[in-house]
Amino acid sequence: MTKLQGSVYYYGGCIKEALEPVFVIPILGFEMSEQKLLKGTLASLPVFLLTGALSVQVRPTIAADYSHHSKEYAKFNKAGELVRPTDYREWIFVGAPVTPKDMNDGKPAFPEFHNVYIDPTSWAHYKKTGEFRSGTIIVKELASVGTKQSASGNGYFPGEFLGIAATVKDTKRFADRPNNWAYFGFDDKPRAAAQPDDACAACHKANAAQDMVFTQHYPVLRAAKSK
Amino acid sequence: MTKLQGSVYYYGGCIKEALEPVFVIPILGFEMSEQKLLKGTLASLPVFLLTGALSVQVRPTIAADYSHHSKEYAKFNKAGELVRPTDYREWIFVGAPVTPKDMNDGKPAFPEFHNVYIDPTSWAHYKKTGEFRSGTIIVKELASVGTKQSASGNGYFPGEFLGIAATVKDTKRFADRPNNWAYFGFDDKPRAAAQPDDACAACHKANAAQDMVFTQHYPVLRAAKSK
Repeated sequence: MTKLQGSVYYYGGCIKEALEPVFVIPILGFEMSEQKLLKGTLASLPVFLLTGALSVQVRPTIAADYSHHSKEYAKFNKAGELVRPTDYREWIFVGAPVTPKDMNDGKPAFPEFHNVYIDPTSWAHYKKTGEFRSGTIIVKELASVGTKQSASGNGYFPGEFLGIAATVKDTKRFADRPNNWAYFGFDDKPRAAAQPDDACAACHKANAAQDMVFTQHYPVLRAAKSK
Repeated sequence: MTKLQGSVYYYGGCIKEALEPVFVIPILGFEMSEQKLLKGTLASLPVFLLTGALSVQVRPTIAADYSHHSKEYAKFNKAGELVRPTDYREWIFVGAPVTPKDMNDGKPAFPEFHNVYIDPTSWAHYKKTGEFRSGTIIVKELASVGTKQSASGNGYFPGEFLGIAATVKDTKRFADRPNNWAYFGFDDKPRAAAQPDDACAACHKANAAQDMVFTQHYPVLRAAKSK
């Protein structure tokens, strides 16, 4: 059994997106287009609240319906640095290639497991359109190989987290970047500046299957697109 | 480059949890315990609706706050078979060991990538308590190795989906099973009967780090527990 160790730290994924108390009130028989809803207050709302107030049931929000998701997950500070995302382990996992040290002369470009996630808003868009929207953020969390043997056989089994990298597509902010993607390496830092194009973008441009994303290694994305 | 192929099919994950139109109305300065909320209608609600109706903003639900999640994800039919979950790719990913064919004489027990997910309700509970609740469902989706070489180096890169297996902990339904877990193999079937204990449970009991779950290979769970 080979036990490979990297620098170890934990980064929890217990962020809540809605910290304020919210109520979800289903109002039966009341239909409205998504566009209208997004415009804000409704002239007709008080009537519905008055007529519905005594009969509606109040329950805490349990919805994880991504189809109406409009939150932007890529946050930048005033210096234009990407703020380290905190809740990516609750995003949509798309695939986990592994480039082990022992298959790369001890020095893989990215050690070792690559757990890759897409933000929920862009996942909803991708399911609908098969394209990566402006605003897409994809996080790659690296983890060491913990062991090469377990009850299920020989192989590579994840160990401890090593750090994260991210890429963001933004047609305005990154108008001059290839396909409008910029790349960020965090390790354990709270924010990161965009990498020069030749550091990451060039390889993605040359080798990734769709819009500089390695969808050839992400069956979750391919399956969503095929539907 | 070695290209290993398995039987290929796609199984999309585009289920929406809240199909009916719902509104989220944040009522500022209004606090209430989760327990009270869960009791249903509130005597004081109409007052808040009346006073708040003209100022609140209506927006479609965008919350993915799992802390109040109460949906049960393990569904059984009348024959006691587990109904194949459909939306597990939108659950919480916990880890992806790989047991490649070429490291297991061509016949690993589970070929090859194991993408493992826990349902959102049980994830919320695990974050709070570090324990697997009754009702927990964990899905293992298998995927072939697509290639052993890519731009990021040598390794194992996911190919196509092969099928799923699941385990459910239920203190009532599986009162007689070890630690109340039962195991189900779906391949591509729409439902599955529980496996005999010696098929899966015995190995999990003997080798898994926490409550018959291989948390030693799932850094996402370990990190959540450590917080």
